[in-house]
Parts: sequence; C-alpha cells; structure tokens
Amino acid sequence: MSLPGPASHPATPYVLDLIALSLTPFAWRRTLGERLRAGESPRSVLDRWLSHPRLNKDSVDRRTLVTRASSAVARAAERGLHLVTWDAASYPVSLAAIADPPPALWVRGDPGSLTSRAVAIVGSRAGSPYAVAVAERLAGDLASRGILIVSGLARGVDSAAHRGAIAAGGQTVAVMGCGADVMYPAEHRDLAGEIERAGAIISELVPGTPPHKLFFPLRNRIISGLSRAVLIVEAGEKSGSLITARCALDQGREVLAVPGNVLAGRNRGGHALIKDGAKIVETADDILEELGLPCPPGTMSTASTTSTHSPNAPEDPVLAGLPAGEPCDLDVIAERTGLTTARLLPRLLELELAGLIRRVGGGRFTRI
Amino acid sequence: MSLPGPASHPATPYVLDLIALSLTPFAWRRTLGERLRAGESPRSVLDRWLSHPRLNKDSVDRRTLVTRASSAVARAAERGLHLVTWDAASYPVSLAAIADPPPALWVRGDPGSLTSRAVAIVGSRAGSPYAVAVAERLAGDLASRGILIVSGLARGVDSAAHRGAIAAGGQTVAVMGCGADVMYPAEHRDLAGEIERAGAIISELVPGTPPHKLFFPLRNRIISGLSRAVLIVEAGEKSGSLITARCALDQGREVLAVPGNVLAGRNRGGHALIKDGAKIVETADDILEELGLPCPPGTMSTASTTSTHSPNAPEDPVLAGLPAGEPCDLDVIAERTGLTTARLLPRLLELELAGLIRRVGGGRFTRI
Repeated sequence: MSLPGPASHPATPYVLDLIALSLTPFAWRRTLGERLRAGESPRSVLDRWLSHPRLNKDSVDRRTLVTRASSAVARAAERGLHLVTWDAASYPVSLAAIADPPPALWVRGDPGSLTSRAVAIVGSRAGSPYAVAVAERLAGDLASRGILIVSGLARGVDSAAHRGAIAAGGQTVAVMGCGADVMYPAEHRDLAGEIERAGAIISELVPGTPPHKLFFPLRNRIISGLSRAVLIVEAGEKSGSLITARCALDQGREVLAVPGNVLAGRNRGGHALIKDGAKIVETADDILEELGLPCPPGTMSTASTTSTHSPNAPEDPVLAGLPAGEPCDLDVIAERTGLTTARLLPRLLELELAGLIRRVGGGRFTRI
Repeated sequence: MSLPGPASHPATPYVLDLIALSLTPFAWRRTLGERLRAGESPRSVLDRWLSHPRLNKDSVDRRTLVTRASSAVARAAERGLHLVTWDAASYPVSLAAIADPPPALWVRGDPGSLTSRAVAIVGSRAGSPYAVAVAERLAGDLASRGILIVSGLARGVDSAAHRGAIAAGGQTVAVMGCGADVMYPAEHRDLAGEIERAGAIISELVPGTPPHKLFFPLRNRIISGLSRAVLIVEAGEKSGSLITARCALDQGREVLAVPGNVLAGRNRGGHALIKDGAKIVETADDILEELGLPCPPGTMSTASTTSTHSPNAPEDPVLAGLPAGEPCDLDVIAERTGLTTARLLPRLLELELAGLIRRVGGGRFTRI
C-alpha cells in the first residue's frame, strides 16, 4: 500500500507486518525477498523469522516489532512521509526484482517518481571540479530526456548529479543511509528540499533512524536496484561507489563509467571497471544507446510535450519536415516549415535535446 | 645489408636494387612485400614492376632508378646515415612482417636499436599539458624497463614520448615523414640530436626527401610496424594517430589508449577505440601485462618440445622454437632458431597455412 503522508489512513495489519519485517536484521533480507516473492504473507514470513532457532527469544517478539512499526507510521505521518510497501503500485518493479528488496520504503516527496526509468550516477565524495562538472552535465542531459537520476545525496559527485537533474527540470531521487526525515549531510538541507520537489528522498530505514556507516553500503543496493544502469563518475580504488557498481552487477544492471585523468589515481576504480567490461561513457547518448532506450518523446520541454505527446495532436511541423532517413539542411527545413531561422534554430535544439533528431554531416539534421 | 654510415663500403647491386624498389610508388608496396617474402630477388621484383603494362615506359627505367639509388647512398654517406635493407640482421623482424614493408630504411643513429622490443606512443600534436605529462611518464616507465619507445617526432604527444624515454635513459626511435637527414619540424633539432644518441631517427624515404603531407600517414604504418603495441594518448575524432591505430590493427598489433577528460572532445578518438575494444591504459604495468611482458628472453622449454613430438623425426626448427601455449614474437623465434627474417617469415607463413601455428595479439605466434 501507499500511505499518502500527513493525512494517512490507519495502517493495516498487513502493512504493519511488512514494516516489522523491515526491522529484522539485514542479513535476513534475501530470505525475506524469496518468501515474499513466493507469495507468502508478511505475517507468515515474520513468524518464520521469529521461530528461527538461533534467535534470542527474550530480546524480540512480534508485539515489540509491530509496536515499533506503528510508531514509525505515526512519525512518518507527522513528518509528511509517504509509505510505499512491497505490494504497492508505486513500489518500483526494478527494486522488487532484486534479491534483497526493502519490504517498505519511506518517501519524502512524490512516490510516483520512483517508477520512472532511472539511471544512477554515483562517485567520489571528494569529487574534483571535473567530476562535478561531468556529473552535472550527464545528469542534466539524461533528466531532460525523461530519465530519473538516482543518487545518494552525498557530497561531491552525488549531489552534483541531483543538482544537474534539477537544473534541467528533470526528476531525481536520493536514497539515504538514514531515515528519509533525517538530514544528512546537514549542509545539503536546501538541496534536499529541491530534490523533494523534483522527485523524492527515500529510505528503507524507519523515520528518525540516524545515519550509521553500516547503512551506506546497504542503501547502495537500493540506488542500483532502482536503476537500469549505474554510472560511476570518478571513483578511486576504494570508493564506496564501487560497492554500488558491484550491487548493479549482482542485480544484472549495466555498469558504466566516465573516464578521466590517469595521473592522480582519482579514477582508478572507474578505469578498473572499464577494464573489466564496463562501458566507457562520454555523453548521455552513450548511456541511452547502451540501455537501448529510445528517447521518450515529450518528456522535457513543454513545446515538445504538446507537439509529440498525444497521438491525436498534429505532428510537430519541424518533425513533419524531416522525413525519417532523409538528412536535411537548414534551408530545406526552413522552406518546408515556413519558419524563419530565428524560430527554427531553438526548435531544432529542443528536438535534438529531446532525442528526436540528431545532427549529421554537412550541417544537416536527421530524424531518429 | 647494413651500411655503417660515413665509412661505407660501396653498395652492392643487390642493395641498389632494393633502394630502387623503395623509389617505386607506395601503391605497389604490398605486392613488393609479397614478392620479397616469397624469396624473389630485388632485381626480379624490380623487373616485374618495370614490365607492368600500365607503366609509362618513357618516364622511368632501371638505369634511372639505380642512378637515383646510388645518389641516395652517396648522400647518406655524406650525412652519416646508415642504410638497413630488408635482408639485414638489423632490419626489425616485426617490420618485415607487415604487408607493405619498406625495402630499405635510412637510419640516423644506432641501427641496432630498431630490433628492440618496442611500443609506439602517439597522439595529438596540440597535446594538452595532461597528455604531455602522461606520454612522458609512460614512455619513461616503459623505457626504463628496456622497452624501445617509437614515435613520430611531431609536436605535442610524440615529442613528449621521445623526451620521456630519453629522460629515463632508455631507447627511442623517431620515424620521419621526410628524409632521416631532413629536420622537420625545425624546432625539434635539439630533440632530434638527443634521439639520435638514444636510439635512431629513421625513414624509408631517401635522404633529402622534403616532408609532404602524404608521407605522414604512410610513415604511420612504420611506427606501428616496428611496435608490438600502439598507445594512443589524447586523440580527437580526426586525429592522425587514429591512422596509426588502424595500421596497428591491420598489422595484428595491440591498440591501447589512455583515457582522459570527456568534456573537451580531445579524447573522443581514444575513447572510441576503447569502446571498440582497445585496452584502457593507466600505467606502464597495464601495457606490459597486455603484451605478456616481461618475458624472459630466449627461454625455451626443451621438455615440452621433446614431449610433443615424434621421438624419431627431428622437429622443424621453427616449431621447436614455439613451445605449445607460449605465444612468442618474431624476435624470440628469430633468436631461438637463428634464422634471418628473410628465411623465417616464409616459413612462418607456411606453418600458419598448414594450420600448425597461428597469429595472436601483439604480433606473436602460437603453436596450435
């Protein structure tokens, strides 16, 4: 189910059982995932765990877990968080598919953003100016083509990726290593507010959970699990983003890496991934191509939305002037559309950014 | 033969014929290579060309070519150049193996340097400070481990590679797009002097030939032909060093590329090579590993040789020099068998056609 935040309905026993499951140890997530996927009820899965012989019966019982689950729901309602449980329509299918899915996600922002086609962009917390610039540019280029940008709100590359998506008017989701209502790192409070408006801040940890170093590697599986591909921007040999890359490989997602300077060692992790078969990425097109993603029409500018979105709408005149497979130069397009160059050029740029046309040799354009 | 420069012996008719062959059009190099490798004499190959029906008989005859060859020898003697012809011991085996080998090389410096294990380092003439730093470092690291650094004495990456090798006290060879005694680019006069002392400056063009834009793509096949691998450092989409990479692929040599900044477009050519399968290189170790080096010189497992053959028949000496599972390059096979290039190459071709050996990466052969 998906609780709509402040004005939430009382949580059902089914939902409380799922939240209770999310309070069981992480080591048990894989078994939990198998059972839920096999159609077992959360109650039955919880009972199975509670009856495990190695469990210290004195330390935990169902009543305690369900009480904690109820408190979490109450706190979420106070804080304006949405709850998206494993069975909800807004629980992303790609995340449900991983071996160890979170039974419940706490969401600050729009839960609907979670089901968009996503690419994760992660990298060094101490990102160089180059890494920050690349992350912002690629995030912006992808977001403007309707791709959701997923990252971890960390310093450096992560926050650059979120910023790039927001600047392009796109969607972005931050996955936290603490409760979705806990601000970490604290200096990203303003950015977090922007992310909330441009997508969501999510966590599998119940509201109020403080950050802990053990939580960050675990949230990395959610970053990759939400995404079709994980793009590494500047990762040293021991970068945490390599954990995300590893999760992506385990989950059958693409691993991509942006190359960079070989002298400083900043990119050793990313380059090692390329040596091992990760695709080398220079542009957003490289990513879309690798994913076999057609550029979804009408996902970026209002102009292209109105002109290409609805099947009933008349086709965009510029697109209509560009028959597929026939590269045309500006004069021809101007003649066919009756548009002046001043009006035509920005329109061509929009269509190019929307992935509907591309430049070919001789200053010509062709429809994709 | 190898003429020892100023105090040279008179050139034999055989040598003059080879030089005359080098004066025939480049378009004919491939046929010329086939004939020489098949054991045909230079005189016979020259006659074959002179009798070609499409040739304008009025414009060229043997006497003219041989006279020009003699002049070239005289000029080389004046300028202190060595002559290394196709059949000489100091003619590099790896170069003899390419489809279109130069019949003769003019050498300023030490002809002995040409037979060292070599890696080519080439890239942008307008090399960024990063590219120059990387080329110098990698050239130095390789040269200090006994690898000959081959490049083209061009501005930017090429000259950085030569400098790096020299600074490390190693060997380097510059392949010119003009005569070996012609200084181009002129500002590299001092560097050329250092290269001469640390290796050689070579050309297939007769002494005194001025630079011409058509000569540079052609000399690129010699840069790669001398080398086991070609390393690209910073190549844009239309960089001439991509021609060298293409030559390397045609010649069965490894193509390697150093990654870099994706924002400026400076590395688009190199990154495209990586996308197409070129190995991404950060350090000299990456290169040595890719080439299977260091490979102890002249090692040959007598045990495996004797065990894989009929105890009665004496084994083919070339096969005996190629223990199963140990890919060897031409230098090693030549050393083990004591055969000259002229005798070794046709034999390797026979064995390959007989399905007993095959070519693998890095210009090496392995027993099947």
